[in-house]
Amino acid sequence: MANGARGLDRFRAVIPAGGIGSRLWPLSRADAPKFLHDLTGSGETLLRGTWERLEPLCGADRIMVVTGRAHRDAVERQLPELTDPNIVLEAEPRDSSVAIGLAAAILRRRDPEAIIGSFAADHVIGDADAFRSTVVQAVAAADAGYIATIGIRPTEPAVGFGYIRVGDALAVEGAPDAALVERFVEKPDRETAERYLAEGGYLWNAGMFIARADVLLDQLAADRPQLRADLEELAEAWDDPALRGPAVDRVWPRLEKVAIDYSVAEPAAAAGRLAVIPGSFAWDDVGDFASIAKLISQGRTDLAILGENARVLADASTGIVVSQSGRIISLVGVKDIVVVDTPDALLVTTSADAQRVKSVVDALKLSGRTEVL
Amino acid sequence: MANGARGLDRFRAVIPAGGIGSRLWPLSRADAPKFLHDLTGSGETLLRGTWERLEPLCGADRIMVVTGRAHRDAVERQLPELTDPNIVLEAEPRDSSVAIGLAAAILRRRDPEAIIGSFAADHVIGDADAFRSTVVQAVAAADAGYIATIGIRPTEPAVGFGYIRVGDALAVEGAPDAALVERFVEKPDRETAERYLAEGGYLWNAGMFIARADVLLDQLAADRPQLRADLEELAEAWDDPALRGPAVDRVWPRLEKVAIDYSVAEPAAAAGRLAVIPGSFAWDDVGDFASIAKLISQGRTDLAILGENARVLADASTGIVVSQSGRIISLVGVKDIVVVDTPDALLVTTSADAQRVKSVVDALKLSGRTEVL
Repeated sequence: MANGARGLDRFRAVIPAGGIGSRLWPLSRADAPKFLHDLTGSGETLLRGTWERLEPLCGADRIMVVTGRAHRDAVERQLPELTDPNIVLEAEPRDSSVAIGLAAAILRRRDPEAIIGSFAADHVIGDADAFRSTVVQAVAAADAGYIATIGIRPTEPAVGFGYIRVGDALAVEGAPDAALVERFVEKPDRETAERYLAEGGYLWNAGMFIARADVLLDQLAADRPQLRADLEELAEAWDDPALRGPAVDRVWPRLEKVAIDYSVAEPAAAAGRLAVIPGSFAWDDVGDFASIAKLISQGRTDLAILGENARVLADASTGIVVSQSGRIISLVGVKDIVVVDTPDALLVTTSADAQRVKSVVDALKLSGRTEVL
Repeated sequence: MANGARGLDRFRAVIPAGGIGSRLWPLSRADAPKFLHDLTGSGETLLRGTWERLEPLCGADRIMVVTGRAHRDAVERQLPELTDPNIVLEAEPRDSSVAIGLAAAILRRRDPEAIIGSFAADHVIGDADAFRSTVVQAVAAADAGYIATIGIRPTEPAVGFGYIRVGDALAVEGAPDAALVERFVEKPDRETAERYLAEGGYLWNAGMFIARADVLLDQLAADRPQLRADLEELAEAWDDPALRGPAVDRVWPRLEKVAIDYSVAEPAAAAGRLAVIPGSFAWDDVGDFASIAKLISQGRTDLAILGENARVLADASTGIVVSQSGRIISLVGVKDIVVVDTPDALLVTTSADAQRVKSVVDALKLSGRTEVL
């Protein structure tokens, strides 16, 4: 699709596959993070879904995955098409500036004109065609020198997402919907979110960034010169098997942990270099079990069930059951309940409390019961 | 204790140990019925607790247990003092008239003057001394020719128990508190229960019956002559190893299933032959998980936890967790919750819905998933 679209022949997708998803414990674990789960009942993992969404845009050879060493095997099982040069293994997690910045630095050395787009491995997107059309515009904006992001048109006053305040329209060839980002807004309270929805001019921040690799790295250097230098030192050694290991040993420990939102996106917005393309497709970062319930139930009010061979017996109950243990699960008279049943850990909470699941993970860490994390 | 009390030298205790306790599924099962569980965290099963309450009254040699063949080993493990003549194995469950009536018929043949008292294997009693003092009075009333029952003085407007309406006081030597039972009342609604509590003159029906064996059997014969004849046919053969088996094969299939409340207690009350001794001790038939939560929490509003080695992590949650699986159980923001976690089945309900658990058992039966029942 979209062959001949501006810049698309130089486009490479980067999938940072990191983050455990603590608010999805006990389903998501250190050794089975969120992106390795099927959270929608589609039959494929979020990682695989991300791959299949991107592959028609750039081909399998141009998708890079950045993940932890521990997940290499699982990732390769999910993505048999993934080629060795396109898998970047992190020695230890160092947040998104490193994951995306290192990919940018490596790809820039392979192709100085590369345009990269980073797309989280653990988000859910409804309409893949609409997604790709939006990315095509973002690539055009990137080709014009902008750092581009994709903002999702809100369909409800969500309080779980950050927002983007849209600024002036841009006149970019191949990106008719592009506008400047005026500013980023932190997750709002309900009242503010309702105002955003009513006023218009606000989009959900989906954390997707598309830019020429050199533009992205220059923007990073403006704010974090040492980090950019460190990433270049790694990238210079990366494609030489004799040099990569020593470089990782030398550089990785000192890499700064910072989200790309702070190191690149916000400074770029402040400098008038951040473009946004509004996307009109369903999107969710699947932050907690309430999101999963909503995704699966599609607005129906009954009980959502996730898990192969789930054996659930429910009487006058609503919410979500995630079944991984194979046991009989019986619910009687529980409303908006969240039950996550795994072989070694059980969680019972409510949709309203789903965001607080992280507190359990923190308590388990404190008490040393890390075997179930 | 109470040696020399009227009739006590002829007193024999009968413990019917039957009934699965469907409303306590998935804790109680066909192969692990309620009486084989520790439901109070005391460290001993309800059956063992019942035995230890009765043993000081009549000695280990005079306690008979009536149970199913499948439970023989488990019962003997719980009660190593139980002697062989004192274990009556039912070919199949035939309700309480058979369980208690057969014990009465067997014991009458061994001692024509026997006074028997039947006490369920799966109730919880708070003050064993007060219980025994009450039984001593009931035995005296039985010696005077009454069928005696023990009624518990209500401490709250319970809707889960039947009630006894107390009639005229009796003048029985050794049973100063004895009165006639005016009538039995089915489980009331809340308003009626509150009126009973305010008016006084009502006791909880604890289903304990104390009578001379011959008096009890004669009362049964008045209402159910065939059943009494069947039980005598069994009893006549019982103590002869060559005759017992054939008699069971011959008679058991035709035994009528009827609760002793209907075959003996109500007719006796109507005939002015049923005495009641009020008991002022804590008592519960532990009918559902809400009862267990109340028993364990002793009125505190936090989370009750039952189960050896339970590993529960709770945040802003109340109710009860029964842990049998050894798994980590995490609760976040769930109130009055009931979580019962066993190796092959999980139940999540609320205190208010605890009575409805039987519906799950019925549904499992209907769907053929009897392996977890």
